Amino acid sequence: MLTNIRIVLVHTFHPGNIGQAARAMKTMGLSELVLVNPRSFPHEEASRLAAGAKDIVERARVVDSLPEAVKDCVQVVGASARPRSLPLPHFDEPDRMAQALIQNAGLAPVALVFGRERSGLTNSEIRCCSHQVSIPANPDYGILNLAQAVQVLAYELFQARQKRADHEIPFRRPAQEPLPTQEQMKHFHEHLSQVVQKSGFLTQPHAQTERQLQAIFTRAQPSRKELSLLRGLLNALSRDT
Amino acid sequence: MLTNIRIVLVHTFHPGNIGQAARAMKTMGLSELVLVNPRSFPHEEASRLAAGAKDIVERARVVDSLPEAVKDCVQVVGASARPRSLPLPHFDEPDRMAQALIQNAGLAPVALVFGRERSGLTNSEIRCCSHQVSIPANPDYGILNLAQAVQVLAYELFQARQKRADHEIPFRRPAQEPLPTQEQMKHFHEHLSQVVQKSGFLTQPHAQTERQLQAIFTRAQPSRKELSLLRGLLNALSRDT
Repeated sequence: MLTNIRIVLVHTFHPGNIGQAARAMKTMGLSELVLVNPRSFPHEEASRLAAGAKDIVERARVVDSLPEAVKDCVQVVGASARPRSLPLPHFDEPDRMAQALIQNAGLAPVALVFGRERSGLTNSEIRCCSHQVSIPANPDYGILNLAQAVQVLAYELFQARQKRADHEIPFRRPAQEPLPTQEQMKHFHEHLSQVVQKSGFLTQPHAQTERQLQAIFTRAQPSRKELSLLRGLLNALSRDT
Repeated sequence: MLTNIRIVLVHTFHPGNIGQAARAMKTMGLSELVLVNPRSFPHEEASRLAAGAKDIVERARVVDSLPEAVKDCVQVVGASARPRSLPLPHFDEPDRMAQALIQNAGLAPVALVFGRERSGLTNSEIRCCSHQVSIPANPDYGILNLAQAVQVLAYELFQARQKRADHEIPFRRPAQEPLPTQEQMKHFHEHLSQVVQKSGFLTQPHAQTERQLQAIFTRAQPSRKELSLLRGLLNALSRDT
């Protein structure tokens, strides 16, 4: 289950933070690290500060963009210091986020995404996520170091996994409908945009309206079956116009 | 309430860890830092890595020994990677520890104690504690970096404080009996040792037996009133012999 949970670090500036994040992951039983455009990697500081988690640093996958890092994931949670105005589902309580992520990781890959040390995730990166989470903290100084944010959320994942293991009835998991991957959602949104434009509802591309539509379907969290249904409907609608 | 919660770092080797621990504290609303014999302090690495928590580093109190750091505390929780054979009350679940510490901090100072980076707390330092706590972690690699351990436990304290605030009924706190300070407990144990030796129960000083006796009374967590009662009893008993 835990190999389905991926930690994604976006544009990390200090290689030492990559090492410390890897160590934090390993202490909580996580092993899948993906780096989006790190400033300097591989780097000896990353390996040194990983301590006993050098294996995670060495196996880390480096990619060019956040969509590339999470395209096969069914849930993508972006960590941010404060809620954005974007209408994504937001977890105020990391333990609830952890329960949801652990549950989805039982079926397919999921990701927990951390932004740059100083500026976090951009709005366009947040839009690659299906959810946001923030760590409750001192309102006067709530800025956790990157590796420490990874540590706290990884700790919550470890706890959620243990609690789930306690309650799990062997051989009798309820049948669940898998969520779509981020790639499947992206294709859906592209399809939706085409249909909207073809319909004449928008006479020209209008990013704000498209984002609002996207947010509605992201919040709805359709299953794969429901997404097929929606795409079938879009096909039907665009044949009519 | 939070100024009653003290973070004590024992024999910290890397000054950078002091800074990172201070930052972790501040993100979770803690401000009282006591350093027992740090290898190198003050140090620019400590200030640099504290980031926005330099004030905590600057106000940190430096002392010579752990008993000095916690003598006025009514609860002293030692963080350790794995349970020792010492018979102290042990919290496996940091959230329970946090609830207890927050509750006691409503009345008097309490402390959370962290040992050296590599070797943790010695047995004699653990004996200065009233409780132990460990952070649930990967059984194959459960060694959190010092500042990350501080972060996780400070986060649990912040959560426990918020939950308590939610449930607190203003102006109607239940009357509670304060616990003795560590210094009061120490005087009691000295008194007990004298009486035991004077009684002829031990014909010569015997550290192991004395520790077992100490552990019994530490586990019992007597209130200040109960401790007075016990000391009165010891006085009465030693007059008889």
